[in-house]
Amino acid sequence: MKVIVLGADGYLGWPLALRLSARGHEVVGVDNLFTRTTVENSGSSSAIPIPPPESRIEAARNIHGFDIKFIKEDITKPGFLRELIEKEKPDAVVDFAEQRSAPYSMKGENEKVHTIVNNLVGTIRLIEAVKSVDPSIHILKMGTMGEYGTPNFDIPESPFVQAIIGGKQDRIITPKKAGSIYHYSKVFDTYIFLFENEVSNITATDIMQGPVYGTRTSEIIHESLHTRFDFDETWGTVVNRFCVEAVIGTPLTPYGKGGQTRGFLSLEDSMEALTLLLENPPKPGEYRVANQFTEIYSIRQIADMVKNAAEALGLKVSIQQVENPRIEAEQHYYNPEIKLLPSLGFKPKRRMEDELKSMIKDLLPYKERISQYSHVILPKTKWRTKR
Amino acid sequence: MKVIVLGADGYLGWPLALRLSARGHEVVGVDNLFTRTTVENSGSSSAIPIPPPESRIEAARNIHGFDIKFIKEDITKPGFLRELIEKEKPDAVVDFAEQRSAPYSMKGENEKVHTIVNNLVGTIRLIEAVKSVDPSIHILKMGTMGEYGTPNFDIPESPFVQAIIGGKQDRIITPKKAGSIYHYSKVFDTYIFLFENEVSNITATDIMQGPVYGTRTSEIIHESLHTRFDFDETWGTVVNRFCVEAVIGTPLTPYGKGGQTRGFLSLEDSMEALTLLLENPPKPGEYRVANQFTEIYSIRQIADMVKNAAEALGLKVSIQQVENPRIEAEQHYYNPEIKLLPSLGFKPKRRMEDELKSMIKDLLPYKERISQYSHVILPKTKWRTKR
Repeated sequence: MKVIVLGADGYLGWPLALRLSARGHEVVGVDNLFTRTTVENSGSSSAIPIPPPESRIEAARNIHGFDIKFIKEDITKPGFLRELIEKEKPDAVVDFAEQRSAPYSMKGENEKVHTIVNNLVGTIRLIEAVKSVDPSIHILKMGTMGEYGTPNFDIPESPFVQAIIGGKQDRIITPKKAGSIYHYSKVFDTYIFLFENEVSNITATDIMQGPVYGTRTSEIIHESLHTRFDFDETWGTVVNRFCVEAVIGTPLTPYGKGGQTRGFLSLEDSMEALTLLLENPPKPGEYRVANQFTEIYSIRQIADMVKNAAEALGLKVSIQQVENPRIEAEQHYYNPEIKLLPSLGFKPKRRMEDELKSMIKDLLPYKERISQYSHVILPKTKWRTKR
Repeated sequence: MKVIVLGADGYLGWPLALRLSARGHEVVGVDNLFTRTTVENSGSSSAIPIPPPESRIEAARNIHGFDIKFIKEDITKPGFLRELIEKEKPDAVVDFAEQRSAPYSMKGENEKVHTIVNNLVGTIRLIEAVKSVDPSIHILKMGTMGEYGTPNFDIPESPFVQAIIGGKQDRIITPKKAGSIYHYSKVFDTYIFLFENEVSNITATDIMQGPVYGTRTSEIIHESLHTRFDFDETWGTVVNRFCVEAVIGTPLTPYGKGGQTRGFLSLEDSMEALTLLLENPPKPGEYRVANQFTEIYSIRQIADMVKNAAEALGLKVSIQQVENPRIEAEQHYYNPEIKLLPSLGFKPKRRMEDELKSMIKDLLPYKERISQYSHVILPKTKWRTKR
């Protein structure tokens, strides 16, 4: 199988390029290095240092014998994706090439505009490129469980759902309620995909993924192969951020009451799930949804687990709740359905409790390095505008 | 009251600038002339000739004594709206400055990108500008009844609705299902407004308007004051298009079975409704929805009414169904709620049956002119991509 991975320099994109190569697939990676350069320019850095793209690809060749092709380009550039897909004729295109930080999308007008434009223009150009070549090319689109918000109903794993409104029944698009401009850009992606599937029979898997944590996959066996690991207020996600806080000896900082509950999965399990979905594509013209996570926890439970894992390794850890910069429910019902991945034989390999220890061990050698950046961890970007 | 009208050169924007002036309000109009220039560049034209913006404003001054300020600018230009709103400190901003053609948005990749970028970037910049000056400035946002699609439930006039999903009840965003990239851009506007209302207490009226028809308002009493009147496949809406077809003696062309049912209103009633909503603003921080139409008809009923009106004026008219270029239900349930406008004292002044005659009379003097453009009427833009 030939797969184009858009966003191949990212936290998930790079390990996926490795995993697909390990499975014998041909990989063409594309990235404009937006996350890499924006994180550095904002005064933060990946906790675990990562080599430049070319060196990492060279390392993958030397260590694993993988032949990963890489193109540095912006997928929103007119004509680029059309020419690439025309030339490569891939079996699948993985779209991870989106601005992926909720706090970034809430910093101000220009970041809101950039998030919406980058993400939606990329989506439109990708769909049109695929349509013009062959609508049966499988597009694996990275959405987020965050598109659903935290509803009182059980979150279905389906683009449509039956609903009763004012006593009348109808089939509606599965309700969405996002919590940031970033999350809305993902909701809008979903609507555009659904619509284009209806009018042009594009073939897509819409992955509604929960937050991913972890430093390693089976292919990341040497420091020259590491994937980025963000921990600052803008680019870090909660589990990774807590692990960094434990390592550098600052308190773990849950936002608000910490009752926010989400479905999580390890980097290794994310790679496993993505590979299964690519190797078992939908039928041509089918649009399928995959809710993708392995364990459900509240933020407070995660803080406790990170504390326990770190203390077992001899670290001293405290937990200090901070004011929630976001607008979100801090106590809520949460019951998402998950059927597609199990039906394809997916079995989670890692449990958060165990994985946290190996993450902390991986981070400990970089304690000095990370400590220089400790000022970028606490949240400064507030959802609610103060006038 | 001081009102900034974005899109003041358009079919609705210009009559609204006139109506607000007639009511004694101060009007600042803004337009980048996108519709005007794009229609001309596509080889079509307004059926009723319209003077350049400056001449029309001059005519409004000479005939009515109105002092309308006009700025030719693109509202997506960084900093423009912020400076304008800072300087003018308006009581309300009316946002009609969006790409408003569904067929245009379905022509191809670049038109899809343009529609999404223009409409959403304008929305974001407007909201951020208003927030930075005063979130209690009333934003009157033009949405469309088309955001709802044609659901089997009664369309509520509310941003949220109670729904039962899988046996569990929740308050969800009123379900949307749009029929084109243009319509989705309007849905996305709505989501962004709702979200920014939640996080920043912006004050908005979201008008879900049905298709508007008509040539005249109380202020359009001379040809130098005419508003544009589009009839081609891209820019014309159904009632106006049928009237032009009747005038030039080509068959009226309903798309498909013609059972598509919508809520319509006259240009005069649209102006009446918009003025009422502006003069009776929501409370600061409130987000309210107005479903805006006066009569519900199917496309086939409208064709019959136009035929009758034209025949009463001595014209010969036939009806010839054409293949539907769109993807839409041609027979469906349709029952939208309408409460807000009646609660403000809105009473429709025109009925379609009567208005059609005066429209046809207004168009007859331009029969020769319009006949030159008869080739632009039949639909060429297909929703479903042919490969």
